[in-house]
Parts: sequence; C-alpha cells; structure tokens
Amino acid sequence: MNTYELIMKKRNGYALGREEIAYMVDGFTAGRIPDYQMSAFLMAVYFQGMNARETTDLTLSMADSGDRLDLTGIEGIKVDKHSTGGVGDKTSLIIGPVMASLGVPVAKMSGRGLGHTGGTIDKLEGIPGFCTSLSEENFIAQVNRVGFAIAGQTANLAPADKKLYALRDVTATVDSIPLIASSIMSKKLAAGADAIVLDVKTGSGAFMKTLEDARKLASTMVEIGKLAGRKTTAVITDMNEPLGNAVGNILEVQEAALCLRGQGEKRLMEVSRNLAAHMLEAAGRAKNTEDAAGQIQEAVRSGKAFEKMKEFVAAQGGDAECLEDFSRFPKASLSRTITGSMLTKQQENASDWREAYLCECDNQEIGMTSLVLGGGRLTKESAIDLTVGIRLKKHLGDRILPDETVAVLYGNDEERLLEAQKRFVRAYRLSENRPELRPVVYEVIQ
Amino acid sequence: MNTYELIMKKRNGYALGREEIAYMVDGFTAGRIPDYQMSAFLMAVYFQGMNARETTDLTLSMADSGDRLDLTGIEGIKVDKHSTGGVGDKTSLIIGPVMASLGVPVAKMSGRGLGHTGGTIDKLEGIPGFCTSLSEENFIAQVNRVGFAIAGQTANLAPADKKLYALRDVTATVDSIPLIASSIMSKKLAAGADAIVLDVKTGSGAFMKTLEDARKLASTMVEIGKLAGRKTTAVITDMNEPLGNAVGNILEVQEAALCLRGQGEKRLMEVSRNLAAHMLEAAGRAKNTEDAAGQIQEAVRSGKAFEKMKEFVAAQGGDAECLEDFSRFPKASLSRTITGSMLTKQQENASDWREAYLCECDNQEIGMTSLVLGGGRLTKESAIDLTVGIRLKKHLGDRILPDETVAVLYGNDEERLLEAQKRFVRAYRLSENRPELRPVVYEVIQ
Repeated sequence: MNTYELIMKKRNGYALGREEIAYMVDGFTAGRIPDYQMSAFLMAVYFQGMNARETTDLTLSMADSGDRLDLTGIEGIKVDKHSTGGVGDKTSLIIGPVMASLGVPVAKMSGRGLGHTGGTIDKLEGIPGFCTSLSEENFIAQVNRVGFAIAGQTANLAPADKKLYALRDVTATVDSIPLIASSIMSKKLAAGADAIVLDVKTGSGAFMKTLEDARKLASTMVEIGKLAGRKTTAVITDMNEPLGNAVGNILEVQEAALCLRGQGEKRLMEVSRNLAAHMLEAAGRAKNTEDAAGQIQEAVRSGKAFEKMKEFVAAQGGDAECLEDFSRFPKASLSRTITGSMLTKQQENASDWREAYLCECDNQEIGMTSLVLGGGRLTKESAIDLTVGIRLKKHLGDRILPDETVAVLYGNDEERLLEAQKRFVRAYRLSENRPELRPVVYEVIQ
Repeated sequence: MNTYELIMKKRNGYALGREEIAYMVDGFTAGRIPDYQMSAFLMAVYFQGMNARETTDLTLSMADSGDRLDLTGIEGIKVDKHSTGGVGDKTSLIIGPVMASLGVPVAKMSGRGLGHTGGTIDKLEGIPGFCTSLSEENFIAQVNRVGFAIAGQTANLAPADKKLYALRDVTATVDSIPLIASSIMSKKLAAGADAIVLDVKTGSGAFMKTLEDARKLASTMVEIGKLAGRKTTAVITDMNEPLGNAVGNILEVQEAALCLRGQGEKRLMEVSRNLAAHMLEAAGRAKNTEDAAGQIQEAVRSGKAFEKMKEFVAAQGGDAECLEDFSRFPKASLSRTITGSMLTKQQENASDWREAYLCECDNQEIGMTSLVLGGGRLTKESAIDLTVGIRLKKHLGDRILPDETVAVLYGNDEERLLEAQKRFVRAYRLSENRPELRPVVYEVIQ
C-alpha cells in the first residue's frame, strides 16, 4: 500500500478499502503523508465521490484519530444535536433546556463559529460571567446534576478532521458531500452520544443551496450513523431567510430566552419543536411524535424549560437574571432602522408601490450584514463583537408599507453600520403579490 | 486574483485566462504558491482538462520560467525532434546524422531517461570517451561545424516544468493530456528550434495506449506549436513491440550505426525515414515528401550519413571507430537465449504446437525486462548499466519454431537475468495463425 497508488485508485473511480482509508487518515494525521498528496487525494474525492461504506470508514478513522469522549458516567440515553449552520440558528439554546427539563441529558460539545455569527459557545459568552471551558469531569457532573451542559470542543477531538479541514479550506475541496458528512459525523461520534439528531439546513443562507443536495448530505450522514451503530435522524429545514427574529450573538441568546418564555417566533419554534421531538423519541422517552410534541409544548408552557435554562446558565457561572431582564446584557451603541421604502427603492420599477410583500431573501447577504457589523469572524484570530446584529420585524410573505420597520441593525461603528445597511436592503426581492410560502421543515430522513 | 479562486474556477470547469495561468505558474515556480495548492489544481486540471488556448498559455508560461536557448547563431532553419518515448526507440541517433549530412542543422538538448532504458544522453555515454556536457558556446559551434550536436539539458530550461513534473509524479496527475503536452512543448519552445517534429508513440509500450489518446496528445501539441508560432508536425507511430532489434543503451547505439550502414531493421527504418522526411520538409529543403524520402535514402545509401555519425561522435570526444568495430564497446558478461519453445510453454493449450506466430506483445513488459537487467533507472539517483539489454531476432507476425532463437538477453547478474527471462517469456501471446500486422506509421497531424 502506498499513497500514490491510493490517490490513483480514487482518481480512477474505484472505492478504497477500510485499511486503505485508515492508511491515508492515520498517515496524514501523523505527518507521514504530506499535504500535497492529501490535497490531490481530496480533489480526486471531490470528483469521484465515495460510497456509503467508504464515507463511514473515513468518518470512523477520523473519529479514532484522537480522544473519544466517555459519556458512560451520564445516566440514560444521551442524544446529541447538530446543525449544518445557518443565519439566526439558535435552536441549541432552546432545545437543550427543553430536553433537560424532560429528563433527557444533553452533553454538548460545541465549536466557535467561522462566518456570519459566532457558534453556540460565542453566543453563550455574551451572558456576563458565563464560562465555556469545563473539565471533562465537571462537564459530566453538570449533565448529571442539571441535565444540560455546553463546553468548548477540546483540542484532541478528531484531530484528523481539524487538519483535513484546514487543508480543504485552502484547496477548494470543502464542498464535497462525503467530506462534509464525514467531518461532521467524526466529531459527533467522538463526542460520545448514543443518538444523534441532525438539522440539515437548505436554502440561500445554507451551505446546501438545494433541497436535493441537502437530502444527499442528510442521507449520507444518517447512513454513517447507522453503520457506526448510532441511532441517527436528520431533519431538513429551511434557511431561505434567517431563523427567528434575531441574528447576532447576544440578540440570539435573548431570543432563545423569549422562546422559552412563550414568546417564540413561529418558524423558529416549529424547527425547535421538531428537532426536540426527534431527540425525545431517540431517547426512548416518547411513544410517538405526537406524544413528544405534547411533552415539549408542556415543558415550555409550564415554564419548566425556562427554569432549566436559568439553572444551566447559573451552573456555568452566568448571570441568569439576564434572561428575564435584558437590560443586564451589554448592548451596541448605535442602531439603524430599515423601513419598507428603503427596500422598495432597491427594486426595479417599484418606485410607486404603496405596499409590497417580502418575496425572496438572499440569506447569505443577511449573514454578510451581520459579519460586516462585527458579529462574526472571517479567520480564527478575528475578534467578535457580541453586541451587534439584526432584529427582524418582518419575514418572507409579510406585507410591508413604506413607513413600516422591516428590521433594526445594531452596531458600534458608523461606517460598518452604513455598509451593513447597504447590504441588507439589497438582500430582499419584493413583489406586489403575496408569494407562496415555503415550509420550514421539509422532511425527515432516518 | 488568488490561488484558491483559481483552483475553484478550474474545479468548476471554467477556462482560466492567460494572466491567471501565469499567476499559477510563476507563483509556484517562485515558491509563493505551496505544493498542496498546486497539486489540488493539477488534479482539477486532470478532471476538467484545458482548452487549446489555456494549454498554450500554460506551455508559454513554463517556457518563459527559465532561460531560452538562443540558436540564432546557427544558420538555416533549425528543426528539433521529440519522441514521447518507447521501447527500443533510437531514432534520434539515426535521424541527426542523416539531417546533418543533408545540410539541416540539428541542435538537440536531450534528457536522461527515467524508465526501461536511459535517454539519448545515456545511450551516447556508452561510446568510450563521448562527452555530453557542452557549454552553450561549444554546442552552437559544433552545430555550425558538424551540423549536429547533442547536449544534456541545462538546468535552467523550463524550471517550472521540472518543479511541476516532480509534483505530478507523486500525486497521480501525470497522465493528463494538457499537462503532458505543455510539459513537452515548454521544453521544446525553450530549446529554441524554428520547427518541431514530434514522434507520438501509441500501443502497449507507450504512454498513450490507444490511437485515440495519441491523436489527442498529437493534436494538442501541434496546436500549441502553431499558437506559439513554430511549424509543428506530429507523426503517430506504433509501439506495440520494441522498435528495431535492440533494447538497451549500447546495443541501441550499435543498431543506429547498423542502420546508417544500410543494415537497418524495416520498421525502425520506416519510422526514421518518415520523421526525417518531415524534418526536411519543415526546413524547406524538400519539394515534397517523395523528394524528401529520396534524399534521405541517398544519404544512407551513399554512406554520407554514416560518415556524419562518425564525425559527430568524434566531435564530442567519442571513439568513432566503435561504430564500425563493435568489439571496442564494453559488453555484458552473461547472456541467455530465448527460444520458441520457452514462449510456447507460457501459452494455454499450446504444448503440442509445432510452430506458432508472434501475435501480441506486452511491450511494457519488454521495457521492464530491460529495467530488471539494469538498463534503466527507477529514480534519478539510480545507476544504469549501459552494457545490458535485449537483442530481438523475431518480430510480431514472424513464424517461430521450437528451437529457433527469439531473442538474446544480456546482463551482468545471474539473478537479474533469470527474473528478466521470466518477464520476457510471459510478454508475448502466440497464435497458430498468422496475425494481421499493424502499420508502423499510423498518421501525420500538422
């Protein structure tokens, strides 16, 4: 077995065996296989793909490249949840407390985000005092005590994936379904949960632009999960506009709290309930989906989920009172209101419209708006401004009048705010007729 | 412009512009673009190809990456000749003297070979005293005086190609037609000739296994030549068995001498005459192909070409008397005769054959036989044994009887000779019926 022959084999469209894949992953992680051979191999995978067995072997090799988290110290069936990422996605902050309040332990390792906003870890750091670095011991103790803990990903979870991702990122080999699927699943497998619920986003603000691609990615990951012996469910959800009303780190924590206080935005709540129901089912705590939905609704209605959120925040050193009194959060110094007329001005032949409907959204541009405001990071070293972001007052399908507020942008720099405004107003397409709405949950693959 | 975007652009199937290609080649040669990005780019080229304009731009960027040989000091139209390589190919040693004897200057830069035998430079070093390292000044002076010189390729001719080839060699990106064509043509353009005649080999002993692939490579190179302003002709010739009777460095020099003494093997002479005729035409020294063929025949018949070969060998310090008295060459200590029955034993259900025809030859295995004997090198550092090789007594289509000699293997090591014999006897397929013969010259592309 040698690297050259394995590159050639994949290049020529053949499937690699388990040991061949392990040879590549282990050799690369240990530094025996140089970057230039691995990048040629990755490009060959981009063009020739990998079958389900190969993708699973790749995933397992990466999962085995470092430590695996041992969650056997936590009682009950541990269910993990992962989202492929989207604009305004704060479902983890809603679902965690709901699950914990229903007695399902959630032990979540989470990364810092690259892109339009931070990751869950960054968002939580917007709560004064909140600490995201927990020792494995404290992490497990908190899950046993509170039912929910979130910690920053330890350095040695799937190091092969980390090294491979860094290479893919500079060699145009990121957007390959087997490579994306194995990257996500290797970390999930190493993180030790018994069951996994995946939120696969699709649309203009997601990595998978089309439903077809989202379906492929979802099926691939579900297949890997099954072959690796973990109960895995994927829910394909819409990302053609931001999820919920808030985009930006602290703004999203606030919105999560509002959701658990019974004031959640419709689509955000639908996605959260759906994912939570699948987690409850996977944990064996619901007879069927209806039963699960009922339990979740009751957890929110009764206030138990919100109490659990406060308990969780307090357990990690955060100021739990923030969640009831938002004035305790730091806030941005500047804001700018976006009105209906500012959007209609960008539309062709629309200068005389008296009213219009929000018809399409370039959601990636909304993400860029948040990034421009300072809410995300382009490189690992970038600093992130947790206070900035966007509050949406309107969603796709809503009718807007010229003077109505569509959104408010929050920032700390006039120049950035102006640039953000320019991007935001160009991101929407309006129409004189009410558009048909997309569902927010497309389908479930398991 | 940045490397990542250019990899992505090629990966997605778009053609790169001239400046984009120059950015990649110059950046890589200067070390600004790392190997791992270039290898991903090369793999993308492998899958997406390049159009004629892109391939020409790539060739010119590589040709411009180092020195260009200035042949203006040589009078007349300079015609270069290049072969894509095959087993037993010694046409350069035949054609050079023929051309020079007809007054067409041939200034040939030649490489050392990697593979079954050495390159032309290695072969010539089998002549006692022959010197292949000439200063540019002496090289040009010799061409003006003798009409023919061969020197080892100087280090700084198309360094981009050298660096790219080294990377392709370890990343399974060698066999891409635009990459092969640009690699060959960049060196030919940098070597300064006015016109180029290409011998594109096809068959089991060639890089291009099928006529279709050979045709693609030939057309691509002719197109590059044209776009770069050089008169370029490609001749597609057969490599389904060794060309001529000898394989091995010194054995091939001896065969070249025999050809110029009027004792050339039929197919070898046909290829040599054909290539020489196109060179004569390209130099404007023949009215048409028939006229050219007549001149070439006369150059050999009259002995002028052979005299020129001796003059050329003497000019570079070699013992020219060798060419008439082969006992002056060093020779291998061991030999082994391969008979007809040794071949029939390898055939299924052929134990009782009284006679058979040589029907097919795995010519790559004949090359490997030479390599095993020590006649070639696997890595740049390998030493080469110039005395070893194969003398063929039979060719495809010939009838063989059990006791007849098919070939003689020459070596200096019993073990290697045994291994070579095993390889050789398995390389042929025999038949009870006379097979149809392939032509040796398939077609001409110009």
